[in-house]
Order: sequence, then C-alpha cells, then structure tokens
Amino acid sequence: MPSNLRVPGPTPVPPDVAQAGARPMVNHRGPEFAAVMRDIITGLKPFFGCAGDPLLLTGSGTGAQEAAIVNMLSPGDDVVAVVGGVFGARFADIAAAFGASVRRVDIAWGQAARPEVVAAALQPLPRAVILTHNETSTGVTNDIAALAAAIRAVSSETLIIVDGVSSIGALPFELDHWDVDVVITGSQKAWMSPPGLAMVAVSERGWEAFRQATMPRYYWDFGKARKNGANGTTPFTPAVGVAFALQEALRQMLAEGPENVFARHRTIGSLLREGVQDLGLELFAEPAAASNTVTAVQVLDDVDAGALLRGLRERHGVVVGSGQDWLKGRIFRVGHMGFVREEDVEAVLRALRTELATAAA
Amino acid sequence: MPSNLRVPGPTPVPPDVAQAGARPMVNHRGPEFAAVMRDIITGLKPFFGCAGDPLLLTGSGTGAQEAAIVNMLSPGDDVVAVVGGVFGARFADIAAAFGASVRRVDIAWGQAARPEVVAAALQPLPRAVILTHNETSTGVTNDIAALAAAIRAVSSETLIIVDGVSSIGALPFELDHWDVDVVITGSQKAWMSPPGLAMVAVSERGWEAFRQATMPRYYWDFGKARKNGANGTTPFTPAVGVAFALQEALRQMLAEGPENVFARHRTIGSLLREGVQDLGLELFAEPAAASNTVTAVQVLDDVDAGALLRGLRERHGVVVGSGQDWLKGRIFRVGHMGFVREEDVEAVLRALRTELATAAA
Repeated sequence: MPSNLRVPGPTPVPPDVAQAGARPMVNHRGPEFAAVMRDIITGLKPFFGCAGDPLLLTGSGTGAQEAAIVNMLSPGDDVVAVVGGVFGARFADIAAAFGASVRRVDIAWGQAARPEVVAAALQPLPRAVILTHNETSTGVTNDIAALAAAIRAVSSETLIIVDGVSSIGALPFELDHWDVDVVITGSQKAWMSPPGLAMVAVSERGWEAFRQATMPRYYWDFGKARKNGANGTTPFTPAVGVAFALQEALRQMLAEGPENVFARHRTIGSLLREGVQDLGLELFAEPAAASNTVTAVQVLDDVDAGALLRGLRERHGVVVGSGQDWLKGRIFRVGHMGFVREEDVEAVLRALRTELATAAA
Repeated sequence: MPSNLRVPGPTPVPPDVAQAGARPMVNHRGPEFAAVMRDIITGLKPFFGCAGDPLLLTGSGTGAQEAAIVNMLSPGDDVVAVVGGVFGARFADIAAAFGASVRRVDIAWGQAARPEVVAAALQPLPRAVILTHNETSTGVTNDIAALAAAIRAVSSETLIIVDGVSSIGALPFELDHWDVDVVITGSQKAWMSPPGLAMVAVSERGWEAFRQATMPRYYWDFGKARKNGANGTTPFTPAVGVAFALQEALRQMLAEGPENVFARHRTIGSLLREGVQDLGLELFAEPAAASNTVTAVQVLDDVDAGALLRGLRERHGVVVGSGQDWLKGRIFRVGHMGFVREEDVEAVLRALRTELATAAA
C-alpha cells in the first residue's frame, strides 16, 4: 500500500531515474562509465556552486561525514562543532572518534545557529568549524552564508566543513562564493536517486588542509578520489547503478533549472507548513529557519505518535519519519525534497486531516 | 556494442535482478526493508558457512577491507599480511594506514600461499593474519581451509581475517568450520548484483576482538551494524536499491542451490582455462591454484595488450580486465563469476581466437 514515501530520505525515485539505474552493468574503468562520471561531475557544479570538480564516494551521508573529517583533520586538532540535532551531534561524534578535540556549541533543537554565537566560539581559533546546513532531525535550515561570513570575519584560515546531506540540490548552496571548504551530500536526498553515493566538494583551502591532515584514511581518501576522478573513474568500485540513476536525475534537474528546482522546494515547503498549521498542529522549527526540504511537526499531547504514523501508512500509504533521540514520539517529520510535487504534500495533508479526526474521535 | 562484460567485477546483473533493483524506494526503517534484510541475511549464510548473522555495509570491497581492519585491531597490533597480488597488498596497506605493525609475507604473484610458509611467519605470534581467498589481480585461489588449519595448529587466539571479495558466493567457504574470524565480500562479484553493498561475517572470536579493538571507527562500526541488523535495518542509510537486487539474486542462487552454483563455476573455470591454452596462450596462475572466478592470461611477447583488449571490446563486445600494477600489459583477466554460463566464456574464446589471428597476421 505505501506509495507516498515522505521520509526525509531515502526519497522517491522518478521511474525514468530508477530505470536508468537498471541499465546493463559496465566496467567502471571503461569509457561508458567515464562518460557517466563526466556528466555527474559537471551536473553537480551548479548545485554545489563550485568551479572545482566534486568527488564521488560510495557510501551513505554518514560515510561522507567521516570522509570529511579524516581528510581535513589531524588527531588533536581543535574543532568547534555546532550541534542543533542528531546529525550535527553525529558529525561531532565522528570528529571525536578520530581524535579531534571537539568543542561542542549546542544550539537549542529547533533553533538556527546565530552567527554571533558561532563567532563567539572562535576564541581560541579552532582548526575547523563544523556546521549543518539542514538539520534533518529538526527541520531547521541554517544560514551558511551568514555563518561562514561570521567565521571569515575572524579567520581566513579556519576550515569550514558543512553537512549538506539534506540540502544541496534542493536549497541554494555556493561553496566558492561563501568560502566554505568542504560540503557533503548524498544521492538519496534532493538528488532523486537511490542511496549509495555520496558527493563532496572541496575548496582550495580544503585541498591544502588535505595535504597536512594526518588522521588515518584509506577508503575515503580524497586525493585518490580526485586523481581517479580526473580520469573518469573512482579508486574503488563505485555504486555503478546509482551513478546511472544520478546521471539521469541530474539531467532532469538541469532541464528544470536549478533556480526552478529551488523555487519548487520553497513553494512546497510553504504549502506544507501552512497546511499543517491549518490543521491545528505546530511546527517544531522556528519559523525563520524552517527548512524547505524537511518539516518537523509537533505531535499533540493526546495523540500517540506511533499510532498516527501507522494510520498514515496503513490507511493512506503515506510514510513519514518519526522523531529521533529525545524527539521520538514528540514530533514526526515530512520529507519534501527531490522528486516532490504539490500534490504529494497535499496528499499528506489530506491523510493527516483524516487521521487526526480519527484520533480525536 | 559491449554486451559480454567479463571484467572480474562489476559482473553482469541478470535482467530480473536489475529490475528488482529498480523497485520503488522504501523507508530503510520500515517493514518492507526489514523483510529484504531478513532474506539477505538468511540467504548469505549457506555461502558464508556461518551460523551467525552476516552484516550489511554500504561501500565497496575496499571499504569492507577497511571495516575488517578497524573493527578487529588496535594501533600497534602485530599483523602478518600474506600478499600475493594487488588486493593482498591493499589489505596490508590499509592495516598499516590505521597503525597496525604489519609484517608482509610476500608470495610470488601467480602462486598460492603455502601453509608451511604462513605457519613459519607466526613467530612471534601475531594478533592477526590477513589472507586473500581469491586474488583478483592474479587469478589465484588460496586454500583457506588449509591455511587456517596451519594457523590454528599454532594458535587458537590469532585472528584470521580473510578477503573473500571475489570468491564467496562462487567458491565454497566455511567460516565456522574453518575457524576463520572475519570474511568480507561485495555485491558486485559472485552475487550478480550491482556494486554498493559489502557483506561481512564475524566469528565469536571476532566479536570478542571487536570489543577490544581501539582503532578509530564510526561508519564501519560492526557493533552498530549488528545491533541495527537484529532489527532489520542498518545504522546509516543503506544502498536500498542494491539490497533489492541482492535479495532477488540470492533467491536465484538458492533456487539453483549452492552446490550447483559452485559446480557451475568449476565447470566454467575449466572450460575457459582449457580453451585459452588451446589457443596457445599461457595461464598466469599455477595450475593447482587456478581460480574458478577469475582467470589471468599471459599476453604473448609480440602482442600489444591494449590493442588486443580494444579489439575484443570494439569488434566483439567482450570486455575483459587489464593487468594491474607490474602486470599491466603482461596479462589480461577474464571474470567468470556470478551470472555466467558456458556460452559466455565460449564467446570470449571465439573472440580471442579471431583477435589473436588478426594480431599475428
């Protein structure tokens, strides 16, 4: 019965993209795959806002988080991690697991990180600041342009490492213009593709840091990925089918046009937030920072979140995400990134209206 | 034009498996994916020869090599790495990159590792021995049963870590019976599935080692994978489409029956080796250790390997692998694992006959 997959990833895959992913297998060191790589690398650039070539890694977004850490840092490096939810906390945990000295700047979940709060954490000046563009667990979008500007006002050397897993491809991002050093994303979010590939962009400052970083690395090594990428391949066997899918998804996204893709996400985000509030529900994120890719909705005190999600799923085919960590049972999350149209969120709202009426009866 | 993909991975994907991989996306924390996970975990066991549940990781075989290292070892651990080709060397390099003290036992490429040679390297007793079941770069299959017995005759505590990337699913493997501690494999080899998933089996001794190991780990953490696996999910978003494909591929492999799958690989391996020798070509691997999944063929002195492979590809649609490292230009490699029938290797032999005649003319 489920047909309206509205978890914040994996996201629905358009039929043409799924079929592209099922194309006959090829040698990942041959000319067919090199052409796929070229299309992907070229197609990603307008969404990353970078002139350099993004890297392709095989793994999930968490794998790309680990990759960003081990390629940029050395054990003992002083790192400021701005944490406003599960994924910010995960990024901090990974840095600590590999030996960074992590100073966590905790932001109330549901709130955006303020530039002045981040700037105040830069004494002493850390080697790197870790930011989350879109916190998937709370539905908050941080203003990376403003946060990066606040950091750059203090230091032109501190690395800025950004989790863009659930943002890039749906929300504007400008790696070069914002002077960010590393940003990561995953195929199963805004990119309308199956999970299995992570994409990373690195600044010149980031490449310089890569040369100095001494955390242990092998599989995630950015240098190997860059060298092989220049030859249209990857150091290790990539998720070839996912790459086929991503090539087609990017073709569709570029045909729509990045600005139109971003506008569609803005429109749909507003539509969903207004619709949810019209149902008498409250949003979890502060309004000014509400995400256009994921919406976290507070569960009314007298409603059983598990029963609500089961009802949505079993009676309406609408699959939304539950709350994570201490938000389990207190919120649910609706994904609206990638392959999403107004009718998809309207169907979510209709199903919610019915289920809430049932719960209240 | 290419249609007979005979590199030693990625291997051809049967149409039904490719279509299963293109099924509509699902929530990786929902009941549909839990059912897929259950089928995969159950289906892998007869091929791994283990009673415990194998783990599912998203990444390539190299990622799984890294996972095996960081979950089993601590920096400074004394490790014996038996190296007979590119992939054995890679396993040793990964262990060293993460701080193991690696003693390399180099075996002449093309030769199998002898039990007495490995046994002789166990003074002083290392924490772990790293072995390659099937060395994809040379077409040699090592006798893991005999090697493990030789190690166990000396020590019941030394960990035995095995690269089974290009063997398991095509060649018999018995983790429990042979008393091996960790073995890894990848979806794109014998499993007839697209690349993107790695599968790992761990012994009880291996789990005890996991609890003691202190190399930094997060994404590859076996404990997280085990805990989530017991609930039918993964700690981080898995390659869901590849899992759909693998579920269907395993269904087909179990329908054929593991013994029949192994027998088919033996028959096809013999057929190819005899055919190649009938063409006046020599095999690279010593006959007693010739692999039934990958055959390395020596290139005659007066033949340009690049031109030969191009001819096979452009005129016959046959894509074989080139030599790696110092074997580049000296051998080519034919993959015959997973979705392979006698007619596929017969087509390789016909194409080779034509191209060699052209080269000689």
